[in-house]
Amino acid sequence: MGDIGKEVTLAGWVQTIRKFGAITFVDLRDRYGITQLVFNEALNTQLESHPLGREFVLQAKGKVIERTNKNGAIPTGSIEIDVQQFTILNKSAVPPFTIQDDTDGGDDLRMKYRYLDLRRNAVKKNLELRYAVNRSARNYLHENNFMDIETPFLIKSTPEGARDFVVPSRMNAGQFYALPQSPQTFKQLLMVSGYDRYYQVVKCFRDEDLRADRQPEFTQIDCEMSFVEQEDILNMFEGLIKRIFKDVKGIEYNDAVERMTWEDAMWNYGNDKPDIRFGMRICTLKKPSTVFAEKQDQSILINGANFQVFDGAEAVLAIAVSGGAVYTRKQLDELTEWVKRPQIGMKGLAYIRFNEDGTCKSSIDKFYTEERLKSIVDAAGAQKGDLVLILAGAEERTRKAMSELRLELGEQMGLRKKDEYKLLWVLDFPLFEYAEEENRWVARHHPFTSPKPSQIDTMINNDPVIHDAANYLAHPYAQIKANAYDMVLNGNEIGGGSIRIYQRALQEKMFDALGMSQEEALHKFGFLLGAFEYGAPPHGGIAFGFDRLCAILGGSESIRDFIAFPKNNSGRDVMLDAPSTIDDAQLNELNILLKNS
Amino acid sequence: MGDIGKEVTLAGWVQTIRKFGAITFVDLRDRYGITQLVFNEALNTQLESHPLGREFVLQAKGKVIERTNKNGAIPTGSIEIDVQQFTILNKSAVPPFTIQDDTDGGDDLRMKYRYLDLRRNAVKKNLELRYAVNRSARNYLHENNFMDIETPFLIKSTPEGARDFVVPSRMNAGQFYALPQSPQTFKQLLMVSGYDRYYQVVKCFRDEDLRADRQPEFTQIDCEMSFVEQEDILNMFEGLIKRIFKDVKGIEYNDAVERMTWEDAMWNYGNDKPDIRFGMRICTLKKPSTVFAEKQDQSILINGANFQVFDGAEAVLAIAVSGGAVYTRKQLDELTEWVKRPQIGMKGLAYIRFNEDGTCKSSIDKFYTEERLKSIVDAAGAQKGDLVLILAGAEERTRKAMSELRLELGEQMGLRKKDEYKLLWVLDFPLFEYAEEENRWVARHHPFTSPKPSQIDTMINNDPVIHDAANYLAHPYAQIKANAYDMVLNGNEIGGGSIRIYQRALQEKMFDALGMSQEEALHKFGFLLGAFEYGAPPHGGIAFGFDRLCAILGGSESIRDFIAFPKNNSGRDVMLDAPSTIDDAQLNELNILLKNS
Repeated sequence: MGDIGKEVTLAGWVQTIRKFGAITFVDLRDRYGITQLVFNEALNTQLESHPLGREFVLQAKGKVIERTNKNGAIPTGSIEIDVQQFTILNKSAVPPFTIQDDTDGGDDLRMKYRYLDLRRNAVKKNLELRYAVNRSARNYLHENNFMDIETPFLIKSTPEGARDFVVPSRMNAGQFYALPQSPQTFKQLLMVSGYDRYYQVVKCFRDEDLRADRQPEFTQIDCEMSFVEQEDILNMFEGLIKRIFKDVKGIEYNDAVERMTWEDAMWNYGNDKPDIRFGMRICTLKKPSTVFAEKQDQSILINGANFQVFDGAEAVLAIAVSGGAVYTRKQLDELTEWVKRPQIGMKGLAYIRFNEDGTCKSSIDKFYTEERLKSIVDAAGAQKGDLVLILAGAEERTRKAMSELRLELGEQMGLRKKDEYKLLWVLDFPLFEYAEEENRWVARHHPFTSPKPSQIDTMINNDPVIHDAANYLAHPYAQIKANAYDMVLNGNEIGGGSIRIYQRALQEKMFDALGMSQEEALHKFGFLLGAFEYGAPPHGGIAFGFDRLCAILGGSESIRDFIAFPKNNSGRDVMLDAPSTIDDAQLNELNILLKNS
Repeated sequence: MGDIGKEVTLAGWVQTIRKFGAITFVDLRDRYGITQLVFNEALNTQLESHPLGREFVLQAKGKVIERTNKNGAIPTGSIEIDVQQFTILNKSAVPPFTIQDDTDGGDDLRMKYRYLDLRRNAVKKNLELRYAVNRSARNYLHENNFMDIETPFLIKSTPEGARDFVVPSRMNAGQFYALPQSPQTFKQLLMVSGYDRYYQVVKCFRDEDLRADRQPEFTQIDCEMSFVEQEDILNMFEGLIKRIFKDVKGIEYNDAVERMTWEDAMWNYGNDKPDIRFGMRICTLKKPSTVFAEKQDQSILINGANFQVFDGAEAVLAIAVSGGAVYTRKQLDELTEWVKRPQIGMKGLAYIRFNEDGTCKSSIDKFYTEERLKSIVDAAGAQKGDLVLILAGAEERTRKAMSELRLELGEQMGLRKKDEYKLLWVLDFPLFEYAEEENRWVARHHPFTSPKPSQIDTMINNDPVIHDAANYLAHPYAQIKANAYDMVLNGNEIGGGSIRIYQRALQEKMFDALGMSQEEALHKFGFLLGAFEYGAPPHGGIAFGFDRLCAILGGSESIRDFIAFPKNNSGRDVMLDAPSTIDDAQLNELNILLKNS
């Protein structure tokens, strides 16, 4: 309003044109918003010879005046520009979809014309949020003495886990660079070099089969510190996320960040990235002896009833649904259908209504007395008026199914609130995972993660070979926990890291444990093993998935909405039409041929 | 000094160990400097059972005390730590070279053990400077409303100029991504999308044969603006460099940044990136009529003397060397040898001494009277006591040689001062360059640079085909100047950019001018031509060579010193031993074969 009377020159895009008699109103859009332009009668001749159209690029000079018909919905809604002069800087064909929040363009069309899609306010807000997160993270890390050090993109192929993208070398015929899956080994080398606090906001590359929420290239906020223990890292990086909350969302996150062991997360939520915005913990009525060795199931509550479904199952898990006693038959049937979907894969769903009057009514009445049902609902933590849902089956699948059911119910019940943010550290991950096809151990995090100090001996003094595949959980390696941690936000892993191995002998043992021969370890990671001989300090770090973090902060499920030029699910950039064929001359220079050509 | 008496815990690397009787002194090095530790007699038993060595990682706890024997050369030189407890965190083998400013390690060894080289203070200072430049640039651009927007790395191969690095696509058999040579087209699309101020500090890739000062991957500070003219860009980005000077070097660069047309730079300095820390301008005694059409040579001063060397030469160029009249015969012979080196390639060097007494003495006395010599030295701007040096030969080679000679003399005479910084804008570059092998035009900057508005018609109304190759300079295209600009610092190009084409028809004409068929233009740049149809705003930008900028600010000739993990001249990372062979399984998945295998 303070600008009224001023002469201004604006430039932008024509959003809408409305004529009222001799007067033309144009909404002009630029990066900063929308401003209404008024073209009075005097400009009609010029407008007739130079007609405007949607998305034309217009420069207008005029005077700021107060709007008679104010629009409270936009920041510049109380003023308009009385245009004195205008120039059409460029014309526009009719765009293939409307440049509006609720565009009529489908996904494919918007991706092909991404440069037009990026004009929409909804997309612009996402990229602005992304930049705000980037800026906030950099400021925090800078203030905490971290140094941005660029690591190379043309590196060595050392596939372990995901596939590398590779780059044929013209100058070294028959040889290839790889694009980094992460700067992991480089940041560790920087620690060896004495740069005790490193960060980078950096592109990483993984040639994986893409799911909806994966991109072949993605961005990490990558950090590493020397002379630290896990506690230092947790404190530093929950500080980072709190700072981002403050700078980007205006949220003062003053609560202590909850911490939970991986085992507790799996036990209570069936999931290593639980959404703790709501409770509804899993009650393990029954579990096999091979898992959660230190936890006690409650099989006494269900045993001896001659109920074949429970007796024959490895695991029986229950949750209490608050206020669920009133669920209709239809609602229960729908939940049953839901758990029987192939993605969930359960055979059925048992329930116990814990009515307001204290009675229990159940789908398993035939096998359990009301007294026994009462014990079960108590164990599940149900109150009067609640519903207890029970799944039975193989431990791993059933726990996963219960986790999914919990999230689905949380969603249905409105417990996963968009504007509530709950951070959680999940700690003490297993060091190894069992790879069934190869009957060997793989690193759950990556091969540079250190075991808990108290378990280093277990690792060193045992043969990694798994002689009894069926009973792999009995192998001592299955019990080794890592100094590894994930940061979870509202049920999404937003970052993960570990304290690293920094001794050559232990790193060699790790490669050995993963089935890598000494020769292979030297070929792939000789530089790192070498570096560990010259005074490597204790160190650890973390990497945040920048795309995902932005998506969650922006309240979206899809990271694609937060990437300026994303690829589709086949890894294609449909705007560029890439990848594409290249000339024979290029292939020749690179000393490669296409197969079957 | 304020810390005296405090209990501290330090961790770092053992730089040196000195024993004086029962007392051991250790210099401990960390990222922030060197601190002297004192181990008293009480710790001798522990030191004997746990002996220290160079580059051991040590944690020491003790009390800060005043040093009796202060070392003014280092910041912590007035204190030392009276060690009470210590722990050896990791041992070190004897490093292959000393971790000192004046290391005994050769280049190859230091590159192989780059993680140790990075410990040296000289290298660390470079990376710190790099980070300071990065931070300063980001702050300035942020404050000026620029937005960091990440552009993709897996894009489409559109080689024009340099070769692309390519990445075979596993999911799209027979197809390849390319790594970007720059984000050029993406930043232009962002302008079309309405993000009117964009920046990125971004890796770029060029598969070129490497010279000493090139890297296959390098970093740019990449910027673009909409609704601007050249003047806006020059102002904005000289502001950026001035800010970097201030933040990084503490230099207030308040002088106006000099501006010079490309033609004047070539005319006066023989070079499109002149070092203007000193004068010594070239005097064109003679030039062919095909170049510098608007400039006047002084051939009248040398013609008609029957001196075959000048009469037969296309160009005769002179410079005045201040105080050079006293150069000895030996010095002149050395300069003559210098210009006859194959890199310079001249046949000889003529000189005229303009003695203090006003007489002239010359190597071409036989052909020119003293009066004529006097006219020549006047034309060259020589004062009494100066020396005039003259080169003759083909225009292009001679001008280049004179430029080199000028720089060499400037160096010898101490006129290229390390601590003096002179910025310069070179403007109005030619739009096209003639590619002799192909007898066609190539873009001097890149195909997206716009011609001067006054010359658009010349471009559109003329056939780009060069019918008379020998006389290509007579083609109207040879005269077209671009809206392009380079920023030059002390004789180095640190950045360059242009106002872009933003109309489809003109862009198509440009592709046509470069000999690209319509089909090829659509295949490679269809997305950009398409974008120009939907309301592209006028825009322009610039990219700074970040590695080079850092090197110059750090006073070094080599960009490698300012890159944490550089590649050698064969494009190899000798530390990683990359590039390297990859598995047949990987090749198979990528649907490629090696040639001759």
